[in-house]
Amino acid sequence: MDSAALLDILGNENRRRILRLLSHKPCYVTEISDYLGVSPKAVIDHLRKLEEAGLVESRTDDQRRKYFNISRNLRLEVDVSPYEFGMKSAYPASPNLDVSSCQYLSLNVQYLNERVEPADDAEDDIEHDVERISDSEASEVAELAAELNCLEDLKSELSLAQRWVHGRMTSVLDSLSEAVDGDGENRIRAEILAALAAGAETTVEISREIKAPERIVESHLKSMAERGVVERDRENDEWTLTG
Amino acid sequence: MDSAALLDILGNENRRRILRLLSHKPCYVTEISDYLGVSPKAVIDHLRKLEEAGLVESRTDDQRRKYFNISRNLRLEVDVSPYEFGMKSAYPASPNLDVSSCQYLSLNVQYLNERVEPADDAEDDIEHDVERISDSEASEVAELAAELNCLEDLKSELSLAQRWVHGRMTSVLDSLSEAVDGDGENRIRAEILAALAAGAETTVEISREIKAPERIVESHLKSMAERGVVERDRENDEWTLTG
Repeated sequence: MDSAALLDILGNENRRRILRLLSHKPCYVTEISDYLGVSPKAVIDHLRKLEEAGLVESRTDDQRRKYFNISRNLRLEVDVSPYEFGMKSAYPASPNLDVSSCQYLSLNVQYLNERVEPADDAEDDIEHDVERISDSEASEVAELAAELNCLEDLKSELSLAQRWVHGRMTSVLDSLSEAVDGDGENRIRAEILAALAAGAETTVEISREIKAPERIVESHLKSMAERGVVERDRENDEWTLTG
Repeated sequence: MDSAALLDILGNENRRRILRLLSHKPCYVTEISDYLGVSPKAVIDHLRKLEEAGLVESRTDDQRRKYFNISRNLRLEVDVSPYEFGMKSAYPASPNLDVSSCQYLSLNVQYLNERVEPADDAEDDIEHDVERISDSEASEVAELAAELNCLEDLKSELSLAQRWVHGRMTSVLDSLSEAVDGDGENRIRAEILAALAAGAETTVEISREIKAPERIVESHLKSMAERGVVERDRENDEWTLTG
């Protein structure tokens, strides 16, 4: 779903409390209402918004009571800096995706390409709460727990790496702005230069890359050319970085 | 700042539009009001909230007009899944942080440990818009642009990796729940098992690790011991995974 709509939904303390509660266990309206100290009517209203956004779903149990569950996996990332206000929301990538092939990133995780499959004898036993699990099930559980623990560490490391990238980008943009945008009015110039470094050559390519009108891109390119930051090859109308 | 307060601030379309505008250039109230088509009074109100949250700051220019700017770098991450509603907000990590030492993660970035320093002769020239920059400045700009482009790619790869981890965690939690929590009422058990896999041994350590009361952790450990998923060493009162 759209990041903006997601932020509208999450920008409410009671809806966040409902999601937190449902992430622990499926709940009925009265449970949620008791836990939050909020009227059932208000809870129903929040649940309706969460359902419309596709974040929760309801089921009806044997006693015909309706209970609610989080239905969706998703991740929202928001970056704020003097140069950026970026939002991104996305579904989880498939667990089968080959993440080892990234250009700048290697994940050193032993579980990367092997997926633990449930033991064949698992199905029958798990319904009975006091029945003991088999040895193969026990070792499957231990392996899954180890993988979960490793994934949690990896998640923290990725988050740290992303905060490092964020800090580094801001620092690079500070330096670039100082060089090509003295008064802070032309932050778009840093993006134009990054697009050139990425291989964009014509005004059309650059404006597509940074999602800005060609007219504006062209005028900044011309000013930067006057200062010797970029050069124009008049023959094929291509731009390059001078340095 | 607190993730919840940040979501409250960002859960408003006009405040998001103000942040997007300010990320392009510093603005006066009337500019923002014209751009958004919202009364100056409403803009002032939003700006006050953004200022209180420390996200924007104001300065007064030579003509004594007050203009606004994004003052803070931060990153917000929200994960939603049937097992989790997690929010995290953090400042960027220092660009000087050594991210190459992570356990599960390697970043293959040539810029990792070298920081481009501005050329000495840069300061004097950059104030004059039509003055041409020196060769060393031009090559510094080209290097910075290349680094920015590389950081943008790295950011996308990290985001993809994080979505992969999210998907993988959900799939591991699905398998674990199936094995130890048939009715979906005891999602905490997967966390207890992950804490055991991470090396926690006593009830106290586990409850500290997963931030749950000891009493509850103890009762789940006992049920899981009855099923043979975990074992208790009675001598030193430590728990281990059976498998």
